[in-house]
This record gives sequence, C-alpha cells and structure tokens, in this order.
Amino acid sequence: MKRLLGLMESRGLDGYLVTETTIMQYLTGFSGGSLLLVPRNEESILFVYGVNYEAAKVKTRGASVELVKPEEDLLKKIIKRLRDLKIRNVGFDSLKASTYLKLKESSDEIMFKDAGDIIWTLRKVKTPSEISLIRKAAELTSRGMRRAAEVIEAGLSEREVAAEIEYEMRKAGSDGVSFDTIVSSGPNSAFPHGGCADRVIKKGDLVIIDVGAKYRDYCSDQTRTFIIGKPSSKQIRIYETVRRAQELAVKSVQAEVKASEVDRVARDHISKAGYGEYFVHSLGHGVGLDVHEPPTLSPKSKDVLVEGNVVTVEPGIYIPGFGGVRIEDTVLVLKDGAEKLTEAPIETYL
Amino acid sequence: MKRLLGLMESRGLDGYLVTETTIMQYLTGFSGGSLLLVPRNEESILFVYGVNYEAAKVKTRGASVELVKPEEDLLKKIIKRLRDLKIRNVGFDSLKASTYLKLKESSDEIMFKDAGDIIWTLRKVKTPSEISLIRKAAELTSRGMRRAAEVIEAGLSEREVAAEIEYEMRKAGSDGVSFDTIVSSGPNSAFPHGGCADRVIKKGDLVIIDVGAKYRDYCSDQTRTFIIGKPSSKQIRIYETVRRAQELAVKSVQAEVKASEVDRVARDHISKAGYGEYFVHSLGHGVGLDVHEPPTLSPKSKDVLVEGNVVTVEPGIYIPGFGGVRIEDTVLVLKDGAEKLTEAPIETYL
Repeated sequence: MKRLLGLMESRGLDGYLVTETTIMQYLTGFSGGSLLLVPRNEESILFVYGVNYEAAKVKTRGASVELVKPEEDLLKKIIKRLRDLKIRNVGFDSLKASTYLKLKESSDEIMFKDAGDIIWTLRKVKTPSEISLIRKAAELTSRGMRRAAEVIEAGLSEREVAAEIEYEMRKAGSDGVSFDTIVSSGPNSAFPHGGCADRVIKKGDLVIIDVGAKYRDYCSDQTRTFIIGKPSSKQIRIYETVRRAQELAVKSVQAEVKASEVDRVARDHISKAGYGEYFVHSLGHGVGLDVHEPPTLSPKSKDVLVEGNVVTVEPGIYIPGFGGVRIEDTVLVLKDGAEKLTEAPIETYL
Repeated sequence: MKRLLGLMESRGLDGYLVTETTIMQYLTGFSGGSLLLVPRNEESILFVYGVNYEAAKVKTRGASVELVKPEEDLLKKIIKRLRDLKIRNVGFDSLKASTYLKLKESSDEIMFKDAGDIIWTLRKVKTPSEISLIRKAAELTSRGMRRAAEVIEAGLSEREVAAEIEYEMRKAGSDGVSFDTIVSSGPNSAFPHGGCADRVIKKGDLVIIDVGAKYRDYCSDQTRTFIIGKPSSKQIRIYETVRRAQELAVKSVQAEVKASEVDRVARDHISKAGYGEYFVHSLGHGVGLDVHEPPTLSPKSKDVLVEGNVVTVEPGIYIPGFGGVRIEDTVLVLKDGAEKLTEAPIETYL
C-alpha cells in the first residue's frame, strides 16, 4: 500500500480505484470487497456488500470497511466520497467501459485515468511472504505430478488421471486448482490447451499433463509429458528437443536478462531441430495471485526479469494429428540464476 | 446466433463484438478465441492466436476462424475488418475502458455501444441441450453432497471434506468445480462465503457445504448445512426457519412470477421468525456457463421468471460468533412450477 502511494504520487494521482478482486486482495488481504478506494492522503476504504461485511471486518488490513446497503448505488457513493475528499485525479486498475462512462458522466471535475500498470509494477516482484506461499503451492503441484506418474497407464481416462492428481493435492493441503487441469492424450495432445475429457489413454500415446495447485490464493503451474509404452523414435526426437529447450531456457533465467531473450533461447533450439513452426505459443508467463500475469516471456515482450519475479518456462512442440510435448516449471528469478519451485522428475530418453 | 442477429437488427446494430470467453463459447462452442465479430450480413469471424488455432479449426461452429499472428495488433485488425465490411454501429458485450477508448480513437466513423444485455436476453433462457448439461452437472453435485453426508464428522478438517466431495464428483465425470468449494464450520459458518481451510470440525458445529460440479462447461450449485452431534434448540430453530423458507420459495417459483416475489417469500418467512437482519444476501441467481448470471432473485430485481430459466434458491441465516445455516438448490423454471435439479436430502429436526 505504501509503495502504491509512492507510485500514485509520481503519476500525479490523488486517488486510486481498484475493481479487480485479486488486486483488492493483494492490497488488503481480503477478496470479498466490491471496490477499494485508495486516497493519497487518507485511509483507504473497502466497500463491501452485506454478504461479505462480517468477514471483511475480520480479515481486511490497511483499509477501513464500509457497508454498501442493497438500496445504495455504489458508483454514486464513490463519486460522493471522491468529492468529499476533494480528489480530482483518479487512477484505476481496470474498469468496464460502461462503468467508466457512468463515472465520467456523473462528474465533470474528476479525471479518471487507466493506471493498471502501476499495480503490476508492484505485483510482478514477489515479497518473501508471497514467495513462500507460491513455493508451498508449487510443492503441492509437484506432489500431484508425482502421483500422475504413479497412476498413469493405458486404460485410464484422462478425467480419471485428473481426479487422482487433484485428490492427492487436496489431501496434502491445496485450496483448489489454479486452472482447469489439462490431461490431453494422443491426438488431443497436439492442442496446447487440449482439455481433459473421457478419452481413454492408449499405448503409444503422448499425454500432456498441465496442473497447478493453489495455496492461500497463490498459484503454481507445471507440465510434464508422458509417453505410454515404448516411445517411437519420432516421439523421442520431439521429447528430447523440448526437454533440452526447457533446460537451456531455465539456465538462461536470471535478473537483468530480457524476457524475450529467455524465449529466444528455447525457440532457437526448437527451430534448429526443425520444429519451429510447431512451437505456437509464448515461452512463459508470471505466476502469483493470478496464474497468468506479467511479466511475459515471448518474442515481443518488453519485460526485463528482476529478482523476485516468478515465471513459468514452458516450451512445447505440437504436431497436428500426431501429438504434442510440453515441459514446464514455475521458477523464481534470482540475482544470478533461477530456482525451480516445481520439482517433479523429467524423463530422458537419450 | 440467429436470435442474436434478430436482436441486433431491432437495436439498429450492424455488427457485434464479443470479448468474453463464455459468450464466445455460447455462440461458437469454442472457448479459446480472443474476439468474435458478428456482422449482421456476413459470416461471423472468430479471431484466435496460434496457441488455440488448431483446436479452433476443429471445434468452432457457425463462424470462420482467423489466425492472429504474434506480430499483429488485434484491435487494428478488427477496425480494418469493420471498415472493409462497412459496419458502422457496433454493439459489444463488455469491453475494458482502455480497449473501448483505443477503438473509439482509431475510428471516428464507427460507433461502439454497450449492448451486453442482448446476450443475456438469450443466455437467461436455456435450450433443451443446455438444460440437459446443467441437469448432469447438478446430478454430479448431488452425488458429491451425498458423499459429504457420508464422511462428515468431528475430527476431519474442512479441506479433507472438500477433497472427498471433489474426488467423488470427478470420478463420476465432473470436469471440475463451478467455484471454490465452501466447507465452513463452527464460527466460520457465520460468513456466507466462509471458505474452506484447516479448521478441524468439532462436535456441536454448524457446517455449511456449498459446492458445484461442472459438466461440459455448465455449472450447478448446491448448499447443505450439517449439524455435528446433537443439535441445540437454537440451531434447530435457525435450521428449520431456513429449511421452511427454502421450501416455500421453491414452491413459489414458476414462469411469469417476479424474481423479487420469490425472494420476498423466503425473506418474509425469515423475518417473521425474527432473523431478518441475518439474511444478508439475495435469495438466488441464474446458473449456466457462469455460476452467477442473470436473472437475479433479490428484493430489487426487475427480472420476471420465464420457462427455461435455471436459478438457485438459497436463503440463509448467519449469526456472527454463533454460526450460520444455508440451504440451496439449483432449480429449473417450468410453466407451472419448478423442478429441483440438485437433489440431496435435507434433514428435518421437527
């Protein structure tokens, strides 16, 4: 909150409106608010409807809690408060166009400006407490992935494998999943987001498993690819290309390195092996309260990695009709390297 | 899609931009698009990045699929296409303020209008195919709830109970959960969204379990409250008040009834029992691809129920420091009544 106030000052903002749940939670520790107003020179106010009011009073830190009654119009309430506090330049994280237009119409003297990037300046760099929660989430994910390695075999459906992974993570303390678990087998594995359905896993399949436990609202993300039965030489070639690309990319991660450079390391390796056109997505993304957040590891990324970023490194090769391979870990960016937070074994077929 | 075109015509829109994933999925059957353009007089176009392009080609119905290359600017691409198609009046489902402003700046001659309500006019009324998917999701939820009834006892943590419920639903065919499962016990049950954590369930606790399986992307939602051990007379009074309120409200559901009237039936019963101030939320909400969607069952709702709506009926009483009770089912609105889609037993202590 203190750092947000500093950034607001540097932008000439005397108020900041937060509408996104994860950002309210980031700033106040409570995710059940409807709107957070951060004045530069007064205490912040979290506006909460009755359904979450009692919980808000117990859980909110660094902001006072104000009840919004069913008959009240929240936007009118906000405008009135901004006027009372003589706030004229208001930044916001993200507003719906309809909300933005209503706010603008109802107050000529107050300026509303998109300033979502300010929050990401903060959220991209994880505090030690955040890192410890992501580390715990990542450990639970790795545990789920090891369970996948134990149970996976021809004859099980994709959904049955997902059930075993999620049950293992839940029993070990996970609060849920960071995203819908992907278990995509055979031809489905050629789709990077191949889902998870009734298909029964067969001998000879490639199976991509992409999973992330949540712990105290923090996410994690890991992918392993399994080959069912004796791998073919083409499967081995693809698998080893991805494995090596991921290894090289993880090795290239450290503070002060461009995110686009880490992407390039993996992409060059895959292109040289002749599979460049089949690596159809970015190398990675930040992980925190959201499972996809800045910084982005892609060819076009302007981000430069800094200590305390937590990002995924996940190259993949997807050949339509044949199948795909992706290997992914969540890593913590350090001053002179990277630490893998997810840690399930990776096969090698060399 | 045909009905959307009709509604666009009645609003004088010659194009419609869809940015929300669930709406793209509703209209095309595929959820991995980045933007859907629906011209009134040409084929619709789903814009898709490389990561989902192969899947889109297989799964998209009623729209052509266009690849967005990494170096392309999606908004510029859209503006160009709108100009080529001579579209001047464009409705949208919901846009971020920043996107809206960019679109507006880059084209003086094209008008962009918030028309999200059009889509809800369609989505609120479920087709027979949608009802069959929600019915299946609801059956899975009921199965999870029956599992909860089997396992719940003093000594288990909230999270362990959630693990058993979710595992049961997953093995039976659920694609995941509609929302983070709530198992809130003892004092936590006094918070309507009491979460699910490490607390160990104790004799004498009220335990609210609120859970929803997902099936083929459709949601469901059910709550039961358990009393651990011998219930106190106060617990019985609260439980029976909520149980009867829910029963009366479900009975009052039918086509042509005001949503506010159904809320009133439950609220009056709870108020007469002296607990009005502790029923701190709306009675219910629509359920479909989203777990919270229109129509809303609340005192202020302007909705009138129609055949094919699927809504929750979920009164509750929450007494800070003591605990809470909520009972909820997902119901289908019929011409002359309602059908409960979720069907786990409700205790009675009378």
